[in-house]
Amino acid sequence: MISLAPGPSALYFTVIDHTRRAFRDGIPSMSHRSKEFEFIFREVDQGLRQLLNIPDDFCIAFTSSATEVWERSIQNLVSETSFHLVNGAFSKRFFEISTQLGRHATCLEAPAGSGFGEVLVPPGQELIGLTQNETSTGVTLPMTLIQSVRKASPESLLVVDAVSSLPYPVFDFSQVDSVFFSVQKGFGMPPGLGVWIFNERCIERASALQTKGKHIGTYHSLPSLASFARKNQTPETPNTLAIYVLGKVIADFLRRGIDTIRRETEYKSTLLYQALDNHPVIRPFVRKPEDRSKTVITVATDGHTSDLITFLSKRGFQAGEGYGSFKSTQVRIANFPAHSKEQYEALADALAEFKK
Amino acid sequence: MISLAPGPSALYFTVIDHTRRAFRDGIPSMSHRSKEFEFIFREVDQGLRQLLNIPDDFCIAFTSSATEVWERSIQNLVSETSFHLVNGAFSKRFFEISTQLGRHATCLEAPAGSGFGEVLVPPGQELIGLTQNETSTGVTLPMTLIQSVRKASPESLLVVDAVSSLPYPVFDFSQVDSVFFSVQKGFGMPPGLGVWIFNERCIERASALQTKGKHIGTYHSLPSLASFARKNQTPETPNTLAIYVLGKVIADFLRRGIDTIRRETEYKSTLLYQALDNHPVIRPFVRKPEDRSKTVITVATDGHTSDLITFLSKRGFQAGEGYGSFKSTQVRIANFPAHSKEQYEALADALAEFKK
Repeated sequence: MISLAPGPSALYFTVIDHTRRAFRDGIPSMSHRSKEFEFIFREVDQGLRQLLNIPDDFCIAFTSSATEVWERSIQNLVSETSFHLVNGAFSKRFFEISTQLGRHATCLEAPAGSGFGEVLVPPGQELIGLTQNETSTGVTLPMTLIQSVRKASPESLLVVDAVSSLPYPVFDFSQVDSVFFSVQKGFGMPPGLGVWIFNERCIERASALQTKGKHIGTYHSLPSLASFARKNQTPETPNTLAIYVLGKVIADFLRRGIDTIRRETEYKSTLLYQALDNHPVIRPFVRKPEDRSKTVITVATDGHTSDLITFLSKRGFQAGEGYGSFKSTQVRIANFPAHSKEQYEALADALAEFKK
Repeated sequence: MISLAPGPSALYFTVIDHTRRAFRDGIPSMSHRSKEFEFIFREVDQGLRQLLNIPDDFCIAFTSSATEVWERSIQNLVSETSFHLVNGAFSKRFFEISTQLGRHATCLEAPAGSGFGEVLVPPGQELIGLTQNETSTGVTLPMTLIQSVRKASPESLLVVDAVSSLPYPVFDFSQVDSVFFSVQKGFGMPPGLGVWIFNERCIERASALQTKGKHIGTYHSLPSLASFARKNQTPETPNTLAIYVLGKVIADFLRRGIDTIRRETEYKSTLLYQALDNHPVIRPFVRKPEDRSKTVITVATDGHTSDLITFLSKRGFQAGEGYGSFKSTQVRIANFPAHSKEQYEALADALAEFKK
């Protein structure tokens, strides 16, 4: 059975071997203060910079989840005001966390399944949070939107949730301040590790808040994460095994070539959207082609969700239900590097045969 | 080579098999909102209650590390004042985190290698933090101390760091409010998971702080952790693999018998302390036998640390260096369920042969 859930998703095909090797080589018992661990940390750091073209003035650190990054971002970067583009459950959660932490958070909300038209950010926002790929609805935001938000609000820190899209999207890191993801989506790993990429402006903001007497947390504050990352270390005993495997998966991606991965992602998503566009019963939930995510494809099932899931499972595919209130009306299909072209060709064929 | 480092330490001998089975059964790709995950969560919850005799009115939740529990404890349980028993680097870190979070933290400090005499807690402390087993120095606190602190300050929440001693110590849970540990020590697992045990008083305190407008965090606040734990769920996508393996290791411990594990721990520690007490060159760092930890044994090497580590490594044992300023004058030896009696007998023999 191939998992098509949008995360935790199918394992990248090398993950089991890397895990086996990690156990053989004693990685789980390794001290996180050893030179060997620093080497493993550096392998991820350098590999990810190469894979995603991350500039030197960005820092790469580890958290336990992307959920943690939501909280730490607000805690470290916002004293008063944050503004959020909300178009689904996960972008909404980022917004709500700011409110829960007592910040004055506001948002621009788009209907589920849609992107945003013109975005007017109220003046004086310390942070703008946007979800480049909304896992709950399968809507992607175009890079031009990120650029226009940046241009209109250059003083605000722009924090981008790319949890369920990386390594696919090409970010221009001069246009953003922070990007984060978790490894159980596009990197095809077991859950339990978040990756937080942030620039000097973020560190300076956190330090400035601290100087003003704001509490930015302790071991996972941005200055703490950054000062350890500079030594290729982590503040606490981390999920060493996951960091090791991530380094190996990134190396695999680099060998395969990020251009190839991106081209195949586009090929597979085109296949699937064509099958859905031509289907008599089911259709893409996201109407406008330009809003459609290439990595999380949401299917409006016309109420046939459980039939479709059963149908696909008989063909060896385990698709995900819709998220939250869309549980019975949608199916979500992940299109990650772990999913091969051949699997997607078979999946598109299977979908074409689905009738009701 | 057998790791004797006090954590990450040697893997419990079943961990590799459990991990292999987890991959075979699709645990890494499992949804954390599935019935199957709830079953895995419940397996840990019920097993740990049985293993450690945890009453029903305590909740068991997962964090990413014990370091996280330090921070979350202060954030959720302390508005103004906390008091800490400090006798090493880790108990000190708990104290410092409270200060860093802007609380008025005070402490009673004992010299490294010593326990505490009479403990007078200043009145009105919201939290008392103590480290039942100080991993940096190998000092254990007797259960009678916990009882006397409890008796003198029944209104304070008593939070016990048992990171490097569980499952060995027998806690009377009517005398404490919270106990926590991480899995890479006594449970013989790879790092990346903390376990936080807390009672209703803790949840009520956190809720009361929240009502008063204090920020207790978001997804990992105590009320959030508790409400998800009641459903056998976690607020965020967790380290599913580690939770699964922990459940299996606990089941192994239950089959072996916690009494057997405790007896063997005592037998092994007696062996080692005897070897050290009778040694012409090296000796136990902790002078008083009643202060000596049974799970982290600290050796004063009279400056021969690197010689001793090299000597042991030739016999197949990888011992840990002293912590921090004791790096060159101490060696630390873990005595966890992963370490067999036979290994410890060989280790005691080896130590007897060490000369300078």
